[in-house]
Amino acid sequence: MIADLRAALGEDRVRTDADALQSRRHDYWVVSHLRDRVGGAAPSPASVVRPSTVADVQTVVRLAAARSTPVIPFGLGSGVVGGVITGPDSIVLDLSALDRTRFIDPVNLLAGFDAGANGLAAEEEVAAQGLTIGHWPQSVAVSTVGGWIATRASGQFSTRYGNIEDIVYAVEAVLPDGSLVTLGKGPRASAGPDLRHLMLGSEGTLGVITGVTLSLRRAAEARGLTAFSAADMRSGFEFQRELVQRGWSPPVMRQYDERESRRLHDDARDCTVIMVHEGPAALVQAETVAATELASAMGLQTVPTTVVEHWLGHRNNVPSWGMLLDRGIVADTVEISAPWDRIAGIYDAATTAVAEMEGCMAASAHSSHVYRSGLNLYFTFAIRLEDTAALEGAYFEAWRRILQATVDGGGSLAHHHGIGRVRRPWMTAELGPEGVALLRKIKEALDPAGIMNPGVLIPDA
Amino acid sequence: MIADLRAALGEDRVRTDADALQSRRHDYWVVSHLRDRVGGAAPSPASVVRPSTVADVQTVVRLAAARSTPVIPFGLGSGVVGGVITGPDSIVLDLSALDRTRFIDPVNLLAGFDAGANGLAAEEEVAAQGLTIGHWPQSVAVSTVGGWIATRASGQFSTRYGNIEDIVYAVEAVLPDGSLVTLGKGPRASAGPDLRHLMLGSEGTLGVITGVTLSLRRAAEARGLTAFSAADMRSGFEFQRELVQRGWSPPVMRQYDERESRRLHDDARDCTVIMVHEGPAALVQAETVAATELASAMGLQTVPTTVVEHWLGHRNNVPSWGMLLDRGIVADTVEISAPWDRIAGIYDAATTAVAEMEGCMAASAHSSHVYRSGLNLYFTFAIRLEDTAALEGAYFEAWRRILQATVDGGGSLAHHHGIGRVRRPWMTAELGPEGVALLRKIKEALDPAGIMNPGVLIPDA
Repeated sequence: MIADLRAALGEDRVRTDADALQSRRHDYWVVSHLRDRVGGAAPSPASVVRPSTVADVQTVVRLAAARSTPVIPFGLGSGVVGGVITGPDSIVLDLSALDRTRFIDPVNLLAGFDAGANGLAAEEEVAAQGLTIGHWPQSVAVSTVGGWIATRASGQFSTRYGNIEDIVYAVEAVLPDGSLVTLGKGPRASAGPDLRHLMLGSEGTLGVITGVTLSLRRAAEARGLTAFSAADMRSGFEFQRELVQRGWSPPVMRQYDERESRRLHDDARDCTVIMVHEGPAALVQAETVAATELASAMGLQTVPTTVVEHWLGHRNNVPSWGMLLDRGIVADTVEISAPWDRIAGIYDAATTAVAEMEGCMAASAHSSHVYRSGLNLYFTFAIRLEDTAALEGAYFEAWRRILQATVDGGGSLAHHHGIGRVRRPWMTAELGPEGVALLRKIKEALDPAGIMNPGVLIPDA
Repeated sequence: MIADLRAALGEDRVRTDADALQSRRHDYWVVSHLRDRVGGAAPSPASVVRPSTVADVQTVVRLAAARSTPVIPFGLGSGVVGGVITGPDSIVLDLSALDRTRFIDPVNLLAGFDAGANGLAAEEEVAAQGLTIGHWPQSVAVSTVGGWIATRASGQFSTRYGNIEDIVYAVEAVLPDGSLVTLGKGPRASAGPDLRHLMLGSEGTLGVITGVTLSLRRAAEARGLTAFSAADMRSGFEFQRELVQRGWSPPVMRQYDERESRRLHDDARDCTVIMVHEGPAALVQAETVAATELASAMGLQTVPTTVVEHWLGHRNNVPSWGMLLDRGIVADTVEISAPWDRIAGIYDAATTAVAEMEGCMAASAHSSHVYRSGLNLYFTFAIRLEDTAALEGAYFEAWRRILQATVDGGGSLAHHHGIGRVRRPWMTAELGPEGVALLRKIKEALDPAGIMNPGVLIPDA
């Protein structure tokens, strides 16, 4: 297989050295990092293939299909739910050399990229022309535009600008049979099911995303900041609900519980709601006034906007798992979504359930993406145990408690990190057995040999 | 088969009388009406089944699957692209008795309906609570909420409120194997491909939509109207592009060419742009001012807003095919979409090509749905021929000229009416051969016996 790949793509595109294999064994899922330390480390793949053309991707997929060899697409490895774990017989398809900007079209506000393009580099390229993708995942500097599609990513400015499915214009992908499709042709179509959605959230299981066209925005004319404190999570949620249901849409709407508020400003006593307003100056002005008046009417206190500036300055800082694991701490985040009248109950149940665990150092949450019908919650937990061999069990138990509280409370199990391996056993709770069977039928139709990223997303029959 | 259906559902649910069969032979596609007059009329189906429960829908589908009997879902028959034409061996699954409002939830702005619920009745029910679906297809009074999903419908207020895919929260459907799925659980999920999109635009080919949950809005606090005239289509498009790309989003943005402008006001000389602004009063005020200032800066003239009021008052009037056919006229509309820099070229090429046809009485267009990256065009043509036997050929030739101009100009072939039969031969131009093959794979996976609305949407292999 390796000889065939080298013959087809060139020697330098197919690596089998320890460095290459070792560094592509898994993504940023903390469990993979933990296993590297305490045992159970993911094995190296057979090879890391790094194609530089779409045709080469087709070649790799066809060769793999012919031999039923597992193919694991790899962008920049920032996934946090176990979407990448290699096996000794697998090929890692490293897409990071497929990183060209294909075009930037300021008239139609479109930009095309190879799937392996770095997110921040892509944003900076369009920003140089006064444009923005408007998609700011925390991982923007360490993720690819193709990865955004594969995981159904959300950005921090989603409440006005939408999630990746609202920003994508077209998706180019190599299907498991090696054929190349371009899905999405115009600004909007009623031409059968929107097949872009097969790739959005597919997590490498239905094909390899090779190119992405995004529908951009012009950089906003103005920006306004507002910040408020609410006596508790419920009253903060009610304020957010009222603002959005009145028809306002600040790109950023975030609400931190008491514990997380103290990260924003030391003397926080209550929950904190922060917002960034963007758009034409007159709209920003009107929205800022409306938000401030509503907050006052609903009993929230105005907070200095320095907390929003603090967030803007630190919003992409992420902890290093290594630093925490060195101290015997396993930590993670779990994002879910729910209708407005369910969210506070889920917040209470999940944080309480995790806080009761042995060694729990932190169980907190904030919301960060708001919709007319509800919003998300982004839980954080940290558990420290003397016995590091017990950390993995504690980790899955914390996840279980949060997801069980979500299911019991009527929420959806995954807001924007995806399913990967950590949520895979929960897919039946999300889709129902018939929904999982439907997803499996599609998988079998597209990938009958099951070569595309096996073990991820779709529960076994 | 009929005996089995009657045994399972009850005598009164399975009709074989001439009235029932005759009236469900086809939808509102003008070609079916033409054929009823000049020959080639669609044959009657074997039976019309009108289930009153979701379980009955499952029973019908299972019985049909067991005997490979074609099942043709039928809402209120307002489709205009030939999505319904029965065969003598087929069952029409009339969903109009499945018309309950399941719930209205003003806290989460959600409402659930049986798929057969009349669109206007649904809107009026939520309006009584100060809410709106925000989805106003011209057919709102003669279409079902399930039909909106099946066709990927758009409403007249889409530029701010989105198309049906932006309004739908959950879809309940009976798959061709009789299983029942509920797709969509929270405000947003990253839990694999968004399976709601299998049903959105499926046109009856992938299952039977039985229930729909929609994400509502509160009725807008304020409404503003603006109207302008532009010297030509290009300058009107440029104005619309500039307004939207600056970050404004009037729910209604429409631009009529000179011919269609005269329908709005008798003395129109130029193209007319009309807009409806909705939202919080301060936002409507800011947007109305911004639109008026921009129009002036770009050389458009302000027009009395009576033209917008005229449009609001007449917007759902549709011509009766019969009245036109009586006079030897075949007419239709064709909606497409394209990026901003392609749209004027497609407008010119399509209207010119149709105007050159023998007997052409009208070839005109307006735009009605605007996106950051482009917009739609809604062409109207009318052809009168002495020889009524030649009308069908002329009809398809007019369609061919418009769609060919769209393909050549870089547009997408269907904005919101769907594919049905009239666009089916063009699907390869829209999706590419690999895209059509992908759609066919999904069809075969879900409906291996091919019982669901055969002959529609998906070209034969």
